[in-house]
Amino acid sequence: MRKIGIRFVLMTVGAFLCLPISAAMRPRARDLGIPFEGTPGPVNAITDVAGVELGHTTLISGEGKLVVGKGPVRTGVTAILPRGKSSGNDAVFAGWFSQNGNGEMTGTTWIEESGFLEGPILLTNTHSVGIVRDAAIAWRVKQGGPDASGYWWSLPVVAETYDGWLNDINGFHVRPEHVFQALSSAAGGPVAEGSVGSGTGMVCYEFKGGIGTSSRRLSREQGGYSVGVLVQCNCGRRSLLRIAGAPVGLEIPKQPSKEDQGSIIIVVATDAPLLPHQLKRLSRRATMGLARTGSVSGNGSGDIFIAFSTANPGAWAATKPASVTMLPNDSMNSLFEATVQATEEAIVNAMVAADTMTGADSHSVPGLPHNRVRDVLRKYHRLTETSPNLKISGSQ
Amino acid sequence: MRKIGIRFVLMTVGAFLCLPISAAMRPRARDLGIPFEGTPGPVNAITDVAGVELGHTTLISGEGKLVVGKGPVRTGVTAILPRGKSSGNDAVFAGWFSQNGNGEMTGTTWIEESGFLEGPILLTNTHSVGIVRDAAIAWRVKQGGPDASGYWWSLPVVAETYDGWLNDINGFHVRPEHVFQALSSAAGGPVAEGSVGSGTGMVCYEFKGGIGTSSRRLSREQGGYSVGVLVQCNCGRRSLLRIAGAPVGLEIPKQPSKEDQGSIIIVVATDAPLLPHQLKRLSRRATMGLARTGSVSGNGSGDIFIAFSTANPGAWAATKPASVTMLPNDSMNSLFEATVQATEEAIVNAMVAADTMTGADSHSVPGLPHNRVRDVLRKYHRLTETSPNLKISGSQ
Amino acid sequence: MRKIGIRFVLMTVGAFLCLPISAAMRPRARDLGIPFEGTPGPVNAITDVAGVELGHTTLISGEGKLVVGKGPVRTGVTAILPRGKSSGNDAVFAGWFSQNGNGEMTGTTWIEESGFLEGPILLTNTHSVGIVRDAAIAWRVKQGGPDASGYWWSLPVVAETYDGWLNDINGFHVRPEHVFQALSSAAGGPVAEGSVGSGTGMVCYEFKGGIGTSSRRLSREQGGYSVGVLVQCNCGRRSLLRIAGAPVGLEIPKQPSKEDQGSIIIVVATDAPLLPHQLKRLSRRATMGLARTGSVSGNGSGDIFIAFSTANPGAWAATKPASVTMLPNDSMNSLFEATVQATEEAIVNAMVAADTMTGADSHSVPGLPHNRVRDVLRKYHRLTETSPNLKISGSQ
Amino acid sequence: MRKIGIRFVLMTVGAFLCLPISAAMRPRARDLGIPFEGTPGPVNAITDVAGVELGHTTLISGEGKLVVGKGPVRTGVTAILPRGKSSGNDAVFAGWFSQNGNGEMTGTTWIEESGFLEGPILLTNTHSVGIVRDAAIAWRVKQGGPDASGYWWSLPVVAETYDGWLNDINGFHVRPEHVFQALSSAAGGPVAEGSVGSGTGMVCYEFKGGIGTSSRRLSREQGGYSVGVLVQCNCGRRSLLRIAGAPVGLEIPKQPSKEDQGSIIIVVATDAPLLPHQLKRLSRRATMGLARTGSVSGNGSGDIFIAFSTANPGAWAATKPASVTMLPNDSMNSLFEATVQATEEAIVNAMVAADTMTGADSHSVPGLPHNRVRDVLRKYHRLTETSPNLKISGSQ
Repeated sequence: MRKIGIRFVLMTVGAFLCLPISAAMRPRARDLGIPFEGTPGPVNAITDVAGVELGHTTLISGEGKLVVGKGPVRTGVTAILPRGKSSGNDAVFAGWFSQNGNGEMTGTTWIEESGFLEGPILLTNTHSVGIVRDAAIAWRVKQGGPDASGYWWSLPVVAETYDGWLNDINGFHVRPEHVFQALSSAAGGPVAEGSVGSGTGMVCYEFKGGIGTSSRRLSREQGGYSVGVLVQCNCGRRSLLRIAGAPVGLEIPKQPSKEDQGSIIIVVATDAPLLPHQLKRLSRRATMGLARTGSVSGNGSGDIFIAFSTANPGAWAATKPASVTMLPNDSMNSLFEATVQATEEAIVNAMVAADTMTGADSHSVPGLPHNRVRDVLRKYHRLTETSPNLKISGSQ
Repeated sequence: MRKIGIRFVLMTVGAFLCLPISAAMRPRARDLGIPFEGTPGPVNAITDVAGVELGHTTLISGEGKLVVGKGPVRTGVTAILPRGKSSGNDAVFAGWFSQNGNGEMTGTTWIEESGFLEGPILLTNTHSVGIVRDAAIAWRVKQGGPDASGYWWSLPVVAETYDGWLNDINGFHVRPEHVFQALSSAAGGPVAEGSVGSGTGMVCYEFKGGIGTSSRRLSREQGGYSVGVLVQCNCGRRSLLRIAGAPVGLEIPKQPSKEDQGSIIIVVATDAPLLPHQLKRLSRRATMGLARTGSVSGNGSGDIFIAFSTANPGAWAATKPASVTMLPNDSMNSLFEATVQATEEAIVNAMVAADTMTGADSHSVPGLPHNRVRDVLRKYHRLTETSPNLKISGSQ
Repeated sequence: MRKIGIRFVLMTVGAFLCLPISAAMRPRARDLGIPFEGTPGPVNAITDVAGVELGHTTLISGEGKLVVGKGPVRTGVTAILPRGKSSGNDAVFAGWFSQNGNGEMTGTTWIEESGFLEGPILLTNTHSVGIVRDAAIAWRVKQGGPDASGYWWSLPVVAETYDGWLNDINGFHVRPEHVFQALSSAAGGPVAEGSVGSGTGMVCYEFKGGIGTSSRRLSREQGGYSVGVLVQCNCGRRSLLRIAGAPVGLEIPKQPSKEDQGSIIIVVATDAPLLPHQLKRLSRRATMGLARTGSVSGNGSGDIFIAFSTANPGAWAATKPASVTMLPNDSMNSLFEATVQATEEAIVNAMVAADTMTGADSHSVPGLPHNRVRDVLRKYHRLTETSPNLKISGSQ
Repeated sequence: MRKIGIRFVLMTVGAFLCLPISAAMRPRARDLGIPFEGTPGPVNAITDVAGVELGHTTLISGEGKLVVGKGPVRTGVTAILPRGKSSGNDAVFAGWFSQNGNGEMTGTTWIEESGFLEGPILLTNTHSVGIVRDAAIAWRVKQGGPDASGYWWSLPVVAETYDGWLNDINGFHVRPEHVFQALSSAAGGPVAEGSVGSGTGMVCYEFKGGIGTSSRRLSREQGGYSVGVLVQCNCGRRSLLRIAGAPVGLEIPKQPSKEDQGSIIIVVATDAPLLPHQLKRLSRRATMGLARTGSVSGNGSGDIFIAFSTANPGAWAATKPASVTMLPNDSMNSLFEATVQATEEAIVNAMVAADTMTGADSHSVPGLPHNRVRDVLRKYHRLTETSPNLKISGSQ
């Protein structure tokens, strides 16, 4: 079985026991024999883009009937630091796109205007965006002094999806210390997926969803760049689900099915030297990766995407005309394709990683049944046969 | 064999013999057993939206070596009239979206501002957008008087894709009379697809492409609305092509393959009562239908989409506060899904309909080989077996 | 002298004494003889648009040296309820625009997508956007049940400008109860201006700024509609300031002057039946009113505008196709002009109303010197002579 | 009197005598003592930005009653070449903005996507946009070979305003040779203003308008950059007109006045090294310069702006990651201010330069009466007294 070296932290923060959610127990999508195009980076995660760090705070407590303010709690915070610890002092070029804006991503107006993402990207549930946003400022204030202009970093980027089906979302259980924890614990390397961090209580195509990630490494002829994608996946109606082109949602139906009310946040990282307007272009390709899994971007879905480039360090802090590097537009095709591919795989990874979860009011959301998915792919001639030693786990 | 009642016109316009391109000789995608989701309208075309009329002018002449100004000519004009002959006096609500703006669609700034599409949508080749645009004004001038404010309709919508591989595009062969012809011959009912009208010289996933169309009829519970899509399909790299989820492009490879340099214009029509901002939402779903066929919206691709609603006649001409009908946002999901489905099918229809064509400098572009596609779909368990009487034609 | 019936509330919220800031002691711009075009509504405020309610929570405490977390505090919250108490259950059509996006306005992505503003608009300082946002959700949760779809209202609109020069902004002094207070105390009628509510610590053209408002009533021939504007004014370099076309900033110079680092939030309300895309058009006219006061929208300025219409009650809650009323585009000119005029006057009102304030680290910002301004206007033949009984107050 | 060395060309193109319109006979706005802020460049024109070249083709023929196709003709073409003759092979970074999109500017979708303006900007009347667009392609085809990718430059930028009051606009009098002429005659140095080129038949605030230009040179501390603005001014209602803050339109009224139906195209050039998203920012400041002259961007007005930078030659043609120079956002304020100032002055220059013109159906539009304007400015203490030798000419 795949050896997993994912770094996680057993935390006791306030009243919560913060569990890593069986990250070591479930395979990733490729392990199941699901075919994907393109070549992933070493850990097949957004952290394959050098410098990118990621931290999760996972909040799980309580069972049974929902009592607002008491729980059950199934939520969390995920922090993505484009340049690791120096993210606050060395902003990255960025662009964003809303395919269906039924959601919140704070800070986008300044990204659009300035071309820069000035700090981390934080993910959480819909009703905790505010506390996470202000905590991000407080964290920056604690880190040191104001910027050169005398100001403090003050327009944080925080995005959300809604976990009110499994989580006591109106209990407002995310606290500033959870944000600090996610920021401080951020690291490179393998990334825990599924029901972790901000993805803890999320639902995807009516299976358990959450955090998923993937990456692509371009060939030397294509520039040798990396593209990494991280999704917080909470969208989709069962019948629409396709995996590797196979109609998995029709083959593993759910009755009754619900309207598409969830959302998906997609973060695209690259080390290719793209300017802000080129990163906006990249972010629009996330739609196409999402579409490959079957979504039609339902009315209730906040499908909001952001892309950043770790190239051009120092550009933001320059006080004089600065030399920056720009990839020719004509060289972007392989990045577009990598983004579509990694988005598709990240979404499937989120579902593959997330085990069945029971939460508020004892609502239960099933994990993706690995063997049944393999059966469907086999039927559609889309299964890559895997090592006979693979022990498929998960809800069947 | 499918009986085809497509209205076409044998035209002699100037020096051109304008041929209907073997419309009656090739089946549509469904006839081949390609599975699609959803229920199409009576003629499975954009004209299933009541009132929408469509006309083609097809220009084909010459063979062999390209001599600029002499030919060979493989181009044309397609006109879509949202409300048929009254399109000029009763504008429709509209919205547009550019997934990748390497193309031209004139008139969009006013659509964005006013919420209205004031006249027809005209399609042609990249280098004839101008002549078509001014001819649209001249046509309007000939039809009658200025509008109530004393002005003439003057911001026409003309979109394009590039046919310079097969067509003497720098010969500027489209003339005003070709535009008048397309506008005057517009009619409802079945629509000729493939190498007709503005689609005459187009290439799609390195097969012959061009015009394709499809429609969906929603159930009564969903409102009973129609959605019709028309594409001018000129985009895509072979290896990316997927049909019904099957990797057709990998199974029928092309070597050497080219960069994605083409474009696709997608027109979405509906009779659902959508406001301008809702139509913009609809237009963004075209991306997801396009993605289902494999595209990643290459840098060179002008992927520009427009959506309009034939509901709310009279809204534009009102001189006092007018009562208009608005579908709740919560009711849009089935329209989103219909748009994605019809876009996917329209693209495949364009390729299925277009036969192999030889044009400028004897460049030849193969038509989609129907039987090989069926073989691929069968391999991936995606072929709907069809009537034993179907005689599959086309280049094999 | 003008009799002022402004409703204000002496509040003791936690440790703060919340003072109305000499609202009754200072005249408004018109009282000084500053000429403006157009006809204002009865109270010359955003509340002239029927149904609009407004509430301030003003936080002032401490003096002298800044100690983070201790003060001095010069900040607050202002709430605008488009339909008063029913704002949460009957959303209004809305549109927004960013002239220079160095600021935050949460919730705009959903406004852009849906066309609706679903709740109040809340204003505060830059570092309290988060707490105000989540408090808005908590307030809604306390008011009653979720909406028909089972969800709670969850994408609040909160905007900000930076008051860190006068206020201990990193002390995070705004608390949920201050938000509840602003929401609960909201009322129609005259509006307190200057250093009140969210405008408490703001600086405008290097004079004391803050909240300002104005309105216009169109003639019956123009439809009889009202347009109301409210600004939170914190922008501008002294030298740029123009009032009624006169170069006030050059005549009352400040040395040394600072870069333009502030921001301005502009809220436009109307009862004219405008659709979302038309409200976006209206919001873009705020730029032109701002420009009349001299601003060039500096890089550091978050110049973000939102417009909503109180027409079409019930449109949002409709579960079937709804009849809504739309003003013809051709009838919008008088609304555009009213918006420009009321924006210009609201900005000047903010400065006229705000008295000199001393805050953090004993920074002091002078109030607009009324008599000197009158002198300048007289020099440029722009003073409307006022009643001899007017007693001009304020810092001279 | 000011010695004017404006280069103009007496042309006979087809049946037209192409007259320079009394360019040498009328002063510019500064000559009249109108005060403006900031320091202009040597010729106070867009051509002060090194490399920018400009050419006019002016078409004037016929008098009296309008006969469609016969005249009278009062129209033309103006060409702006960002890098002079090498504009086609070395694209410039660009951005655009629509303050009110009742107009056409072709090619903007690709500017938005790519960040580049690939060729000249061409201006003409509303109904000739098409012919001018295709002629621009034809001109490029005649100049030489396709670009490196095998394509020809094919998405020209052509903008328009409506001259149908003075010109036989439905006679389509602009021909390809007029476009070639404007392109070929383009040169640096002083620019003819008023009723020349594409501005020939335009009307501004119900005075004769047309082409106007101005520039600003930043101080060494501000970077020493140049900003040049060119307007094709055809907008505005008389009563709104302000010059230097004085209410000129109210002092020189027109009865009856018309609705604001015109348009204004504003082109901003700079040599400051701005990236595409920064140029979009610059283009948005044109609104504020326009607002200073009184406009509220009426519904019928196509107020569309484009900004480009001549810095970064070679960036577009790069086939590998290229080093480009970027000005820090924090250094943009002086460019913003220069843009606002130069826009304001360019509009006034257009009106000052244009003499009374009589055209179609003997419609006559008065030139700005210089002495009356001076009287108004004097009344409002806004006249800069000029040399006693100045002989004020023009319609009084």
